[in-house]
Amino acid sequence: MKNIVKIKRALISISDKSLLKSLLPVLSKYKIEIISSGDTYKKIKKFGFENIKISSFTESNEILGGRVKTLHPKIHAGILNIRNNKNHRIDLIKNNFKEIDLVIVNFYPFKNVIKKNNDFKNIIESIDIGGPALVRSAAKNFHDVLVITNPKNYIDVVNEINKYKGSTSLNFRQQMAVNAFNEIANYDSIIANYFNDKFNIKFPNKKTFTGELIENLRYGENPHQKAAIYSNENNINIKQLHGKKLSFNNYNDIFSALSISKFFKKNNGTVIIKHANPCGVSIEKNNLKSFNLAFNCDPVSAYGGIVSCNFKINKKFAKKLNQFYFEIIIANKFERDALKILKKRKNVRLINAHNFQNKGNSNILFYKKNFLYQDSDDLITNKKNLKVVSKKKPSKHEMESLIFAFNICKYVKSNAIVLVKDKSTIGVGSGQPSRLDSCDLAINKAKRFQFRNLLNSVAASDAFFPFTDGLEKLIQSGVSAVIQPQGSIRDREIIKLADKTGTVLVFSKTRHFKH
Amino acid sequence: MKNIVKIKRALISISDKSLLKSLLPVLSKYKIEIISSGDTYKKIKKFGFENIKISSFTESNEILGGRVKTLHPKIHAGILNIRNNKNHRIDLIKNNFKEIDLVIVNFYPFKNVIKKNNDFKNIIESIDIGGPALVRSAAKNFHDVLVITNPKNYIDVVNEINKYKGSTSLNFRQQMAVNAFNEIANYDSIIANYFNDKFNIKFPNKKTFTGELIENLRYGENPHQKAAIYSNENNINIKQLHGKKLSFNNYNDIFSALSISKFFKKNNGTVIIKHANPCGVSIEKNNLKSFNLAFNCDPVSAYGGIVSCNFKINKKFAKKLNQFYFEIIIANKFERDALKILKKRKNVRLINAHNFQNKGNSNILFYKKNFLYQDSDDLITNKKNLKVVSKKKPSKHEMESLIFAFNICKYVKSNAIVLVKDKSTIGVGSGQPSRLDSCDLAINKAKRFQFRNLLNSVAASDAFFPFTDGLEKLIQSGVSAVIQPQGSIRDREIIKLADKTGTVLVFSKTRHFKH
Repeated sequence: MKNIVKIKRALISISDKSLLKSLLPVLSKYKIEIISSGDTYKKIKKFGFENIKISSFTESNEILGGRVKTLHPKIHAGILNIRNNKNHRIDLIKNNFKEIDLVIVNFYPFKNVIKKNNDFKNIIESIDIGGPALVRSAAKNFHDVLVITNPKNYIDVVNEINKYKGSTSLNFRQQMAVNAFNEIANYDSIIANYFNDKFNIKFPNKKTFTGELIENLRYGENPHQKAAIYSNENNINIKQLHGKKLSFNNYNDIFSALSISKFFKKNNGTVIIKHANPCGVSIEKNNLKSFNLAFNCDPVSAYGGIVSCNFKINKKFAKKLNQFYFEIIIANKFERDALKILKKRKNVRLINAHNFQNKGNSNILFYKKNFLYQDSDDLITNKKNLKVVSKKKPSKHEMESLIFAFNICKYVKSNAIVLVKDKSTIGVGSGQPSRLDSCDLAINKAKRFQFRNLLNSVAASDAFFPFTDGLEKLIQSGVSAVIQPQGSIRDREIIKLADKTGTVLVFSKTRHFKH
Repeated sequence: MKNIVKIKRALISISDKSLLKSLLPVLSKYKIEIISSGDTYKKIKKFGFENIKISSFTESNEILGGRVKTLHPKIHAGILNIRNNKNHRIDLIKNNFKEIDLVIVNFYPFKNVIKKNNDFKNIIESIDIGGPALVRSAAKNFHDVLVITNPKNYIDVVNEINKYKGSTSLNFRQQMAVNAFNEIANYDSIIANYFNDKFNIKFPNKKTFTGELIENLRYGENPHQKAAIYSNENNINIKQLHGKKLSFNNYNDIFSALSISKFFKKNNGTVIIKHANPCGVSIEKNNLKSFNLAFNCDPVSAYGGIVSCNFKINKKFAKKLNQFYFEIIIANKFERDALKILKKRKNVRLINAHNFQNKGNSNILFYKKNFLYQDSDDLITNKKNLKVVSKKKPSKHEMESLIFAFNICKYVKSNAIVLVKDKSTIGVGSGQPSRLDSCDLAINKAKRFQFRNLLNSVAASDAFFPFTDGLEKLIQSGVSAVIQPQGSIRDREIIKLADKTGTVLVFSKTRHFKH
C-alpha cells in the first residue's frame, strides 16, 4: 500500500531561500495553503503567491524578537496528530486545530556562523530552537506528514506532488524523514562540539561526531566493502585535475601523504607513500633532488605508490615524474606545461592540494561499537625537546638530520626505525612487533638501494630500545648518531654502548607510537 | 562576575524518576515553584511536595495522548526570554508569561526501547519531541537558565542551590548547558542511526556517530596525547579482574585480539598480539597445544605482548602462562584456582571477555576533519569462495590450513603474508610496502623459531602477487600450497609457476587489505 496522503496545508520556515520559488507553483496548483513567517512570508508574497503568517494561524504573536514563533500547540498538534486516530481527531476539532501535512524547514546555518563569526552572543542567537522542533515533529509523524530539510530535495517534492496530484506517498515521506533525522543529528552535533571546544571540554560524557558526504566510493579497502568519504568541513580542499575517480585506498594514502607534506616548510620536500606508510621522504631544498632522494630510499616499493610534492610542479619536474609509474601525484599546484605532460598518462591521478590544511586536533580509532578518542599526535620535535646523553656531541648538521628523522618516525607504523642521511630517509623499517626486526628492515633497505653507504647516517626510533641489541645493529651498519625516547630500564646500558662506540645519542622526552 | 540568577520557577519533565526525591527538599526550601506533568506530577505529589500541572500553567490541555504537552509559547517564552532585555520583559508582561529559571528534563530512553523492542509503532512513539525542545531552549539561554539532563547531576544542583541560597552561578549553568547540548546530539544521533539501519541507508548525506564515555585514560597512544574510551553500547562487555588500569594501547590491543579470537569456534584457539598485530595464532583443539604453537610462532615478539584465549583458563594452563611475561591475558572466564595463580604477577592485567561480542558492521578511518566510512571486513572465507587453479589439488588437511591462513591474513596489516602449518601460524610478515619483503619476513620468522621445518607448510597472501618472485620465494622455502586473491595481469604466469613446481595454488575472489 502506498499510503497516499493529501496535502492540505504546508508550513514553510526556511533560512536558505535560494530555491523557494521553484516550490510555489505546484503548491498553488493543488490549492495547498501555505503558512510561513518573517522573511519567508515576505518572499512568498513577493513571488506573487498567497500565504498566511504563522502568528495569524496560531492567533499568537511572534515574541522575544523572533525567539518564539512556532513553538505552539496549534502548530505541533497540526503536525503530530495521527490522522487515523479518533481521539486525535476529536482533540483537533475541539481545539479548532488544523492539520499540517507538509513541513519545509531549514535551520539557521550554525556551521557557517561559527566560521565567520567570533561574537558569542551572535553565535548563541543562531541556535535554532523552533526549526528542529518542527522537523522532529514532522519526521516522527512521517506516516502522515512530509518533511523537507534540504533545498536539493525541492525538485523531488515538486515531482512527487505532481505525480500524486497534490498528495505524497509513504515511501517518499519515509525517505525524507530519515534525511531529516540525519539533518537534526548533524546540526546538534555541530552545536555540541562548538560548545565542547569553546569551554575546553575534551571528553564529555556523550560525544558525537558528524560529517557531510563528500562522495560515495566505488568500494572500501576491499571490493566487498561499501564505502564513502565524509568531511566535517564543506569539502576536503583537494582538487583532482586528472585521472580516474579516487578510491578508498587512494584517499587513505593521500591523507597519509599530506599529513607529512604539510608539516614541511612551504614549497619544500617530497614524500612517497605506499599502503599509507612512507617509503621515502626528503626535505632537500632543491625539488628535483628531494624527489630523487625520496624515490631512491625504496624504488621498488615506490612503484605504483603515490608521490606528494610540497611545491609547484614545473615542466622539468613533470618530465622526470613521467619516467615512473605512480598511482597519484600530489602537488601544490602544477604549471600548465607540467600538467600537459603528466596528463599524457591515463592511469595517473593528479591532485592539487595547495589549499589542503591539516585542521583538527583529534584522532579516533573505531572498533565496531567502541571508539578510542585522543588528541592527534601533533607534537613537532625541535632542539628544545631533546637531551644529548652521549659524551660525543652532535654537529649542527647531525642534529638537524636527527630531528628530521625523529619527526618522520611519527608517521611510520610502530615499531618504527628511520635511517636518514642529510635531509632524506635512506631506510624505513615499519610495522614490526620487534624493534630489532624494524632495525633489520631499515638497514637492509639502505644497504640494498643506497648508492651512498650508511657511514655517517643517523637513525631515529619511535620508542626506546628495550635492549642494547637494536642500537648495536645500527652502529655496526655505520650509523653515527641515534635519537630515541628515554624511559627504558636499560637507558644506562644504552648510553654506555653509545659512549663505548663513539656514537652520538640523543634522548627525546616524547614517544611517537602509531599503531 | 558570577552572574547569580535566582530560581523562581522550575520545570520538571523526566522519564528516569529514580533520583527525583533528592531534588525536592531544596526546591521547597527556597520556595521554588514546580511545574510538571503526567507521572512526574503524581510522583512529586506523592513525595508530599507542591507542584503545578503544565496544563494548568499554560491553560492549555495536554493533547494527542501526550504527544503535545510542553510545546507552548508560555513555556518556551518563560525559558527563552533574556532577563536583561527590556523588550523581552515587556513581551512577558503583556502576555502574562512567567519566567522559568530551572529546567530538569530527561528524554524517553530511545536507546533502551530499540534494544528491547521490535514494534516500530512503539519505537516511533518513544521519540521525544517536547523534551529536546525544552532542553535546547534552556541550554541556549544558559546565561539565565539552568538546564539539567542527567540525574547524576542532581547532587550538584542541590549543592549549587544551597551554596547560592536559591540561585545559580553562570559557571555552573554553562557546564550544564554543554552537557545538555551533548545529550541532545547523542539522542538525535541514536535516532538518526536507528532510521538509517531500519531503512538500510548506509551513506546518508549527513552522518553522525556517538558514544558514551566509558572511562578517561591516563593518556593516548603516547604520553603527550590525552585520551578516553567511548562506546555506543552501555559498556564494552569486558571485565578486568586484576592489574593496573587499562591504557589506550591496551584497549587497542584487546580489540585487535578479540576481533580474531571471537571469530574462532567456541572455546577454541589462542592469539598473541603485539602492537595491535597478531604475532602468533593457533586453533589447535587442545588449548595448551594451541598456546604453545601460537607462542612459538614468534616468542621474541610475544614478550610483553597480550595473549587472548578463546576458552576458560584452568589451573594447569595458568601455571604455563605464568612462565612468561604478558601485559594482558584475556580469556573466556578463569577458573578460581587459575585466577589465584595468575594474580601473583602484579604487572599482568587479567580480562574476562566471555561476554564480549564483535557487534557492528562498520569501520571508520578518521583523518582530522575527514573520515572514510566503510563496511567492516567481516567476510569469512570458506571453501565456496575459493577456486583451485593449479593442477595439483589440495588435500583436505591442506585446504583447511589454507582457509585458516587466509582468514588470519585479514587481521594482519598489509602487505600480509601468513605461513601456516596444520592449524597454527608459523610466520607472519606484515606492514611492508613490498609484498616480497613480507614474504621474507614471514619466512625468516619461521626459519628462526620453528622446531619443525617449513616443508609442507602453506601460505596466504592478503592480495595478489604482482609478480612471480614472491611465490617463488615461498616455494623455495618449502611451502607446498598457496592461497591468494585473483586479479593480477600475471595470474597466468603465477599458475604456470605453481604447476611447474608441483605447488597447490588456490585463488580467492576477495582481497583482505588492511592499512
